[in-house]
Amino acid sequence: MLKDTLERGRELADAALERLLPPTTQHPVSIHRAMRHSVFAGGKRLRPILCMEAGRMVASSLPGGIEELGAALEMLHTYSLIHDDLPALDNDDLRRGRPTCHKVFGEAIAILAGDALQTQAYETLARLQCPAESRVRIIEEIARGTGTVDGMIGGQVVDLEAEHTKPDLTMLEYIHSAKTAALITASVVSGGLYAGAHEPEVEKLRSFGQSIGLAFQIVDDVLDVTQTSEQLGKTAGKDTAAEKATYPALFGIDESLKKADGLVQTADAALESFGSRAKSLKSLAQFLVVRKK
Amino acid sequence: MLKDTLERGRELADAALERLLPPTTQHPVSIHRAMRHSVFAGGKRLRPILCMEAGRMVASSLPGGIEELGAALEMLHTYSLIHDDLPALDNDDLRRGRPTCHKVFGEAIAILAGDALQTQAYETLARLQCPAESRVRIIEEIARGTGTVDGMIGGQVVDLEAEHTKPDLTMLEYIHSAKTAALITASVVSGGLYAGAHEPEVEKLRSFGQSIGLAFQIVDDVLDVTQTSEQLGKTAGKDTAAEKATYPALFGIDESLKKADGLVQTADAALESFGSRAKSLKSLAQFLVVRKK
Repeated sequence: MLKDTLERGRELADAALERLLPPTTQHPVSIHRAMRHSVFAGGKRLRPILCMEAGRMVASSLPGGIEELGAALEMLHTYSLIHDDLPALDNDDLRRGRPTCHKVFGEAIAILAGDALQTQAYETLARLQCPAESRVRIIEEIARGTGTVDGMIGGQVVDLEAEHTKPDLTMLEYIHSAKTAALITASVVSGGLYAGAHEPEVEKLRSFGQSIGLAFQIVDDVLDVTQTSEQLGKTAGKDTAAEKATYPALFGIDESLKKADGLVQTADAALESFGSRAKSLKSLAQFLVVRKK
Repeated sequence: MLKDTLERGRELADAALERLLPPTTQHPVSIHRAMRHSVFAGGKRLRPILCMEAGRMVASSLPGGIEELGAALEMLHTYSLIHDDLPALDNDDLRRGRPTCHKVFGEAIAILAGDALQTQAYETLARLQCPAESRVRIIEEIARGTGTVDGMIGGQVVDLEAEHTKPDLTMLEYIHSAKTAALITASVVSGGLYAGAHEPEVEKLRSFGQSIGLAFQIVDDVLDVTQTSEQLGKTAGKDTAAEKATYPALFGIDESLKKADGLVQTADAALESFGSRAKSLKSLAQFLVVRKK
């Protein structure tokens, strides 16, 4: 059941990405090859899947065209990975088991490929098959979730600045909630908005997203310590090497996993009123903490 | 008259940017300081001004709130400058008479500040004070104008790849039309859409934008050869040093300026049907070719 959700969701998201991204034969080819290199490097497509399942829960069936919204979220996630991996930032050679974008195409094209995936995401969002009112609301949610104040870029900035400093819990919670949870929250909220969710439903999805987003990042940090690079498809042990502010560094592995479990329970509780329709999102939340990569 | 348009337009755009960008006291402060460093470095605000004057021409008076659309265009222009100036791209130390973003804040923050200005632009566009239908149409136009196929990023890619190769006219026209004219076109078209322009009006604005956008880039390339760094506020002679594909390199200065004049006449002709309401846009077009920086 969960396996089906993950597989079918990934297929839908991949097909949409295939349709929406310019082909590698499109002039100028280098940028389109670079964009596709990083997008089609075998990601789990968790954000599109969370978005689509949120839409399915609200509308009681999968809303037509929602996979394009999912694809836009994946473009934004991939843009952030490409820029995060650059020498000036995390300087990483390996991502999703493949050489990073700048290792293959050079830094200039990697910077522009990240830029272009952000641009392509907003073009996609502007053209979604839902009412224009919903589209602008979705764009606003996603822009905030990836912005500087309490969104993804803000989290990346503090994450960078926190290297080689003693982590404190306030800073750590900001980093996790901004860097990771904000885009995951925007994914489930935008899926709900696409499906026509009313305000109280939107707020329940927001609460769910914030909890699973934090749990996701805690587990990510644990895996960085406990798994090998081969298992992860990206360089393991990077956080410790860079003295990053992480949950395992502050609380140890067992306590971190306990915290993640607690967050999943909080997340589940937020979806109470959706009854059995919430089953799929709840099993995805559970999956986020038991995954091995 | 033209002086008033330029001054009043710049003031309006600057005030909107001041309101829309997070203050330098907002956590995390480094990214907000970096964004504002580059945005408030004394640009001419040509794209916002062209956008506002296009809106004024269509609606017969300046549409309320259009300066926020102008501000979003300036954010996008500034993001492209920040990334263009990075060591991996044009490696420039000077922009608008000030040290470039990465010289002051480091490469990591400069990359993220560029990203963030793009994000902030789309958040701004999603919240404009015009109907949601117009907002999504504007977002689509602007995303295309800054995208990879025939927009700004595509132009930057080919511009980079054309260095140290013999320029040919097809490549040069693609670079100019994609790198510069596309965002200038999106500026006048989006201003028209904000003001409620009908399709035939939109197409006239598009034609005007394409011609003045090309003229603008030709003059930019001429100034790079004829002016000093001090006069330009950015490093002069860079194109020749990098063996960039430019009009003056291919045709010489006189022929290039003649071409620019011809394009301004074509641009003016596109606005024929707007009669005396087109006066301000026409004088802006004229200004683009006689400016000294």
